[in-house]
Amino acid sequence: MPASLEALDANIHAGRESAMADLARLCAVPSVSAKGQALVPCAELVADLMRACGIEAQIMPVPGGPPVVFGEARSRRENVPTVLFYNHYDVQPPEPLDLWHSDPFTLTIRDERAYARGAADDKGHIISRLLALDAVRKAEGDFPFHVKFLAEGEEEVGSPHLGVFVERNRALLQADACIWEEGGENEQGNPSLYCGMRGIAYFELSVKTIAYDAHSGVGGSLLPNAAWRLVWALASLKDPNERILLPGHYDYAQPASLRDLELLSALPENEPFIRDQFEIPQGGFLGGKQTTGLEWRRRAVFEPTLTICGFESGWQGPGAKTVLPSEAKCKIDFRLVPDQDPDDVHRSLRAHLDAQGFSDVHINYLGGQKPARVSPDHPLVKLAAETGAEVYGKPAVIVPIVGGSGPMWWFSGFLGMPITSPGIEYPGVRVHAPDEHIRLDDFMRGTRHLARLLSRIEEAISPPNPTLAAGAKL
Amino acid sequence: MPASLEALDANIHAGRESAMADLARLCAVPSVSAKGQALVPCAELVADLMRACGIEAQIMPVPGGPPVVFGEARSRRENVPTVLFYNHYDVQPPEPLDLWHSDPFTLTIRDERAYARGAADDKGHIISRLLALDAVRKAEGDFPFHVKFLAEGEEEVGSPHLGVFVERNRALLQADACIWEEGGENEQGNPSLYCGMRGIAYFELSVKTIAYDAHSGVGGSLLPNAAWRLVWALASLKDPNERILLPGHYDYAQPASLRDLELLSALPENEPFIRDQFEIPQGGFLGGKQTTGLEWRRRAVFEPTLTICGFESGWQGPGAKTVLPSEAKCKIDFRLVPDQDPDDVHRSLRAHLDAQGFSDVHINYLGGQKPARVSPDHPLVKLAAETGAEVYGKPAVIVPIVGGSGPMWWFSGFLGMPITSPGIEYPGVRVHAPDEHIRLDDFMRGTRHLARLLSRIEEAISPPNPTLAAGAKL
Repeated sequence: MPASLEALDANIHAGRESAMADLARLCAVPSVSAKGQALVPCAELVADLMRACGIEAQIMPVPGGPPVVFGEARSRRENVPTVLFYNHYDVQPPEPLDLWHSDPFTLTIRDERAYARGAADDKGHIISRLLALDAVRKAEGDFPFHVKFLAEGEEEVGSPHLGVFVERNRALLQADACIWEEGGENEQGNPSLYCGMRGIAYFELSVKTIAYDAHSGVGGSLLPNAAWRLVWALASLKDPNERILLPGHYDYAQPASLRDLELLSALPENEPFIRDQFEIPQGGFLGGKQTTGLEWRRRAVFEPTLTICGFESGWQGPGAKTVLPSEAKCKIDFRLVPDQDPDDVHRSLRAHLDAQGFSDVHINYLGGQKPARVSPDHPLVKLAAETGAEVYGKPAVIVPIVGGSGPMWWFSGFLGMPITSPGIEYPGVRVHAPDEHIRLDDFMRGTRHLARLLSRIEEAISPPNPTLAAGAKL
Repeated sequence: MPASLEALDANIHAGRESAMADLARLCAVPSVSAKGQALVPCAELVADLMRACGIEAQIMPVPGGPPVVFGEARSRRENVPTVLFYNHYDVQPPEPLDLWHSDPFTLTIRDERAYARGAADDKGHIISRLLALDAVRKAEGDFPFHVKFLAEGEEEVGSPHLGVFVERNRALLQADACIWEEGGENEQGNPSLYCGMRGIAYFELSVKTIAYDAHSGVGGSLLPNAAWRLVWALASLKDPNERILLPGHYDYAQPASLRDLELLSALPENEPFIRDQFEIPQGGFLGGKQTTGLEWRRRAVFEPTLTICGFESGWQGPGAKTVLPSEAKCKIDFRLVPDQDPDDVHRSLRAHLDAQGFSDVHINYLGGQKPARVSPDHPLVKLAAETGAEVYGKPAVIVPIVGGSGPMWWFSGFLGMPITSPGIEYPGVRVHAPDEHIRLDDFMRGTRHLARLLSRIEEAISPPNPTLAAGAKL
């Protein structure tokens, strides 16, 4: 029997002050994964916070990376489903520091907003998840499902060790549904539910041709120029019409379905905002004049991309220096749509460069993540939409896939569970940027949304998932 | 009647101490043109040094640049030729300072070498020219030719205003022969005479596509990437076989003549040295396995080149940053062979980029110099070779053209005079680098060579040059 909405809301309201105090403690630990900073102390604090919420927590070592915090609470009820929470306790670097209006590691309340690095991404969500769980447990006398709670420490650097951890702990992580680490409302105040992420394959390409830089007057006719080698190699990878030239690159790329296009069509208009933000003239989006309306939305998330993220070689100062560079390097990322695979891209990239005469181009594979999809019509998504509409007073919007990337595939694909994403964010939240913050109202709304969803989650998922049980024996 | 060799040598020997003191004064003025530093004081000191040598000197303003020092001395003899000296009083920046073993602006004698920025390039040559002129004048009682002496202050930044100065002062600069600002001996101790320089056209190309950098997950499918635009534009300019793709680019490029190849053939072997220096494997020079021997020498100086000198865009730090760059820029230089023209290249580059769909690539023309040739069989070159062989005790080598660039065309082409290059350098001289120096013996040898050449220069040139006289009326 689901808890009464009044009881849930009252419990959340009662826990609000304490939750903010917990968030302040958590944000005070500068767990910047890019710098390998304060990760173990942060993991320990997250474990303590789980325990305070009635969850048994352990710190699980991860070879080569910071530990995973894994929490588990078994309901005393029988035949209930298991819900897994995926979150991360690491944060982005706070720099540039001078653009913050208060210390990034001191949670500061101003104008009904709470500012700190991690206030939203993702410490705010950890606290919101725990508060919602606590509210449900108190309202019902016990958790109405088994709880599993995974918090990793490397999400902000691409979750390089999470895959191996999931593979090695498949049975431990088995669950019937997953609550994703982020979510919230859009520009119009509708709760947004994300049903997938693009994948990514990120590489550094580098060339070294000669022992050191030469004078262009002496060497220009004779010495191989690293910058030219890299320019030609890159030009062999994508043509000026944005077509990626790796053989077979599009073979497994699933086009948007009619249902996807229907969902994209129902999303709020974002095109004029992006046009203004980046000062794009009419017809100036990639793909030309036809890239507008639904095609704009489709292209934004359902096209594989190849981005040069950076390029560096030779003289970059002012004026003319007649130097012939011995070294050049660039960073590139491929964004992948289902069912492309980053490891395939890695192999294909090496083979293509070799075939095109660029064996001298060294590839450093900095990381990859597979694209992830959850059916937008899964009962879990529908329930999240229904409960979201109740709390926000506006219909939920369902986003079939987002342009960014994350480790979602390990849960949706490898572990095969449905996923949804109630959350505490709004578009002005400034994740990864100075003055990251949440609005206190959003924290309450997102937490209430999650609590209502959790209190009824049995309606949407059928325990135990036989496929997963079979998978666990592998 | 030429002065006796003994008198010339004795005069030079007698002036040696005073010349070194003058060089010390000149090197103490940090006339770094790249920083616009101490140029007028240096010009004034050069004018004083000319006056002390019996040359009337004036400081001539140059709109937009540092002044030219122009000196003139008329011989009392009739029907004698005019000899123009081209030099420059500016120097390269001394940085990196920590690699100098003594202060770069304090001429320091160690082990029979004189160390300072400009000791060779070009203040040492200015002092050597003045000492040679003084020795000839004293030996003969007067200059046996009319003297013109031009010292500019912007050679190290590409002589951007020299061309206009020469055009506006054509009559003033008219002469029958020109002594170039540099020269000296090669690795084997043979005096080397340069008969030309490649031209250059130097550009910065830049692209700005969007207002500021975007997230590659959001923008990769929609927003034009400045780095890609520049990569594609560059790839349209030269193919991986090193063929420059500007239409008509090779139309005016003169191939090496049989005489050029004969001269190249007689040059000392440099290929193994370059191979070792830059760690080039067998067959690793541009053009492949056939680039060796005479073809190597030909290719080194008689091929037009296009060098990427630098490229910069987006994220260049460690690790993966998923950014889509709004801006990209690169520097490129074209080396030109006779009779290519840098202004033609500028026009052709713009037209080509427009035709290829790269009107968004902005071109900043940072400077150009035309290629220059002097006949290696001109009597002036022959006389310089003969007098060089006497002084150095080894045959002179005649270099048909060098790979580097300079303002020589204004004298050889526009003013139409023969040019030669006796000088005080040796290959270890470190021009433009820390510990620039000359060997004191080389200073004496180079000065004696020049004095002997000057004392007999009437044999090689016939005053007045009727073509030039006609030209002066234009």
